[in-house]
Amino acid sequence: MSTIMKHTGHPSAEEQLRQRADVIRLQLTQGVSKPFKKIIDICSGDIHSVGMKPLTFVRQVVLAGCLCPNLLASDALPHDARQRAQKLLENCDGGSVGAYAESSGMAYVQRTVAKFISTRDDVPSNTAHIFITSGSIRAITVVLKLLAQGGAVSQTGVLIPVPFPYTLPRVLESVGSVPLPYLLREEAEWRIEMEVLHRALLSYKGHYWPRAIYISNPGNPTGHVQSRESIQEVIQFAAQENLFLLVDEVYQDTVFGVGCEFVSYKKVLAEMGPPYSHTVQLASVHSLSNGIMGECGLRAGYMELVNVDESVMLFAEALLCGDISTAITGQIALKVMADPPKPGDPSHCLYKQEVEYRQNTLKHNMYRTAEFFNTLPGFHCPPVQSGVFIYPRLTFSPKALTHAQGLGLEAGLWYCGRLLEEEGVRVGVSECVDEAGSHKSSWHLRLCVLMPPDALEEVLYCLQAFHCRILKEF
Amino acid sequence: MSTIMKHTGHPSAEEQLRQRADVIRLQLTQGVSKPFKKIIDICSGDIHSVGMKPLTFVRQVVLAGCLCPNLLASDALPHDARQRAQKLLENCDGGSVGAYAESSGMAYVQRTVAKFISTRDDVPSNTAHIFITSGSIRAITVVLKLLAQGGAVSQTGVLIPVPFPYTLPRVLESVGSVPLPYLLREEAEWRIEMEVLHRALLSYKGHYWPRAIYISNPGNPTGHVQSRESIQEVIQFAAQENLFLLVDEVYQDTVFGVGCEFVSYKKVLAEMGPPYSHTVQLASVHSLSNGIMGECGLRAGYMELVNVDESVMLFAEALLCGDISTAITGQIALKVMADPPKPGDPSHCLYKQEVEYRQNTLKHNMYRTAEFFNTLPGFHCPPVQSGVFIYPRLTFSPKALTHAQGLGLEAGLWYCGRLLEEEGVRVGVSECVDEAGSHKSSWHLRLCVLMPPDALEEVLYCLQAFHCRILKEF
Repeated sequence: MSTIMKHTGHPSAEEQLRQRADVIRLQLTQGVSKPFKKIIDICSGDIHSVGMKPLTFVRQVVLAGCLCPNLLASDALPHDARQRAQKLLENCDGGSVGAYAESSGMAYVQRTVAKFISTRDDVPSNTAHIFITSGSIRAITVVLKLLAQGGAVSQTGVLIPVPFPYTLPRVLESVGSVPLPYLLREEAEWRIEMEVLHRALLSYKGHYWPRAIYISNPGNPTGHVQSRESIQEVIQFAAQENLFLLVDEVYQDTVFGVGCEFVSYKKVLAEMGPPYSHTVQLASVHSLSNGIMGECGLRAGYMELVNVDESVMLFAEALLCGDISTAITGQIALKVMADPPKPGDPSHCLYKQEVEYRQNTLKHNMYRTAEFFNTLPGFHCPPVQSGVFIYPRLTFSPKALTHAQGLGLEAGLWYCGRLLEEEGVRVGVSECVDEAGSHKSSWHLRLCVLMPPDALEEVLYCLQAFHCRILKEF
Repeated sequence: MSTIMKHTGHPSAEEQLRQRADVIRLQLTQGVSKPFKKIIDICSGDIHSVGMKPLTFVRQVVLAGCLCPNLLASDALPHDARQRAQKLLENCDGGSVGAYAESSGMAYVQRTVAKFISTRDDVPSNTAHIFITSGSIRAITVVLKLLAQGGAVSQTGVLIPVPFPYTLPRVLESVGSVPLPYLLREEAEWRIEMEVLHRALLSYKGHYWPRAIYISNPGNPTGHVQSRESIQEVIQFAAQENLFLLVDEVYQDTVFGVGCEFVSYKKVLAEMGPPYSHTVQLASVHSLSNGIMGECGLRAGYMELVNVDESVMLFAEALLCGDISTAITGQIALKVMADPPKPGDPSHCLYKQEVEYRQNTLKHNMYRTAEFFNTLPGFHCPPVQSGVFIYPRLTFSPKALTHAQGLGLEAGLWYCGRLLEEEGVRVGVSECVDEAGSHKSSWHLRLCVLMPPDALEEVLYCLQAFHCRILKEF
């Protein structure tokens, strides 16, 4: 498994598609004729780019509070939005969002996040352990740098799932960490299998220095939601093997699978009691960009560090210092995410409606899309439990495989490349592998489905037309 | 000179003051009694935090365009602000500022910046060479990383001025670059003296690998504005010595000294013609945080790369990829900075008024503050030409020096520490050194003076009261 990242070449297929999409976009602006007017990019989970509307209250508070304080005296915004904005401005230096904030974030926002976490988990959260960052990637980078600082001769090894969030390898690469993959299997519904994890770790020992295990829960791109028992097993594993737990929980507000529930690693850790609750080091990451908010462009997120030495946290702050601070507009939106309007507030009803609309749209689109793929020959799409991605498996006919091979292309790249050229639809793609890292001649596509249902239907229409053409050809 | 950074201990004095200020802030929130109600922090050049108001048009466009598109149909905003916002939204994916942008910035904003530069310099600027970043520090970091990538065994050495922008050492440290100081002398009005520069470089050769020279023009914190001739000399020096020119030009819109004019390095480079114009590698950095805009909290800036290989620029983009993208709100404000309202536009008059008010306030405050310091015994403050900082020199009496020494403190830190404790005023401080790196028993304070004149008077009142107490004691 250790060289799986190179074998599979996933990042390269994704990267090639990205570059090609950029070229096509440029051509479209130059008037080059294409069978479509614009590229629909559904590989990244950026829901605003595919037509989801922002939550009104977020924009009103950010808007009023952040930028035009003279609106605070007018009736253009609801009372509670103005009140919030007023309070936020009082917590900005000089009463302006144009001022710098502390490197680790505005104390006011940190306090709200701590309260959000303690309410969610029924476990205390310490404001001093909350770090506001420009997003989950930045938070993960800081943790990896912290781990690297404690390092001796060998590089920091990080156990990562396969499949992984498609941005992860670049993050590890940027800080010089070594990815040490552990396999998640579709046959096991993408859950973490402890025997696989143990085998993987064993195979790396002696060659690398495994320092941390990265977990994505709810799983990106698999949509799997870990059970409390599974989380306990992983925590025990981390404790035994002295691994830092780096947990990406950015899809916590998008769990819709029947009988599924998001439980945070921090909550389970606290419930397990000593020695675990006092020793296992944990970083939990959340962000404004993913899930229901989808405010990618505002750039904000947070991480909470648990059982991490005070001196290490000081160092985390020093690392964040290089960033000066996360954009205040994003921090304000984060504040709203952690503390939405309450029942009785003038904006509560609309906020609730908008969130429910998104959750219902997500659920509806997931079922619709899974059903769609399951009717297409070659595709297999089990039900998804959470997240914004659907992750169908595509098995190619021998004829199609031979054809792609003849062109010198991996079959998945060939398929998605043609989809991009012919329909203007960009999806993510990765090859299926087994525990030994061998190819399995089938591929997973990755599609973000949180978009207005009519936009989804357009995409499905394109996909169907395209897939039928391919079937006919091969 | 090579160990000047350690000798002087500047970063540590600044850092100690910062930490102490944080503690005092916390105490104030906890109700601890102090001789002041809040800390006035004038060391960082964050003008909004000291009461300067934002430019209305920036906020209206960011506001309308960015966050509440339904305002586009109302009369709450001027026509041109709504039009701009509309256009900006059309250039966001999905018509929302909630969507991701390209790592190197929104193409629409890049184009505007390129046009701004070519108009300013009367020299073409290529959109593909413009990189939008979250600020000047991020831009400098990316350039230093690029230089380090080409590196062999030894670390990348970067010639830096002394005095330097106070955030610079941390940036160099974060990427493992070695600072190689060259002295600027107050007696020479802080201009770059070529013989000093040559001597400095010579002393480093053989020990380090000097790869770049960092220039701050207009000078931070000195306020010196380089002449065209001085820039030519530095370019020739960089060409001879094969150094990358890393030019921080963030204070370009704050030149007020009589007979002074901002001329960009890029313009001079182009005017010099071949071989210089085609070979000398240059990065020019500008930002939204400094100077007249002062929108620190929105986090945006840009850099232009000149004569840099295409493959290196691709790598710059890859480095910026880790950031996903600069917050869109900041990018939109950057767009306004590069393309302000034009004569005839409904918002032009107010915009012009607001900018002129700032420029006049800056000029007035500079003269006022210089005059103020020149009446205080122990202080010497020559006229300043640009920027938002004043940089008076303070010479201590032998008695005061002995007293500080008795407390185990550098005199500058002792003085500024007491100022912070007794008056709640935080200023920057650095020790004067000569070319050999020896101490000169006098110190420079660094104060941002771009603030409302009445706020400035309050600060000066505190400074005077404090200084008189010190004089009486010593």
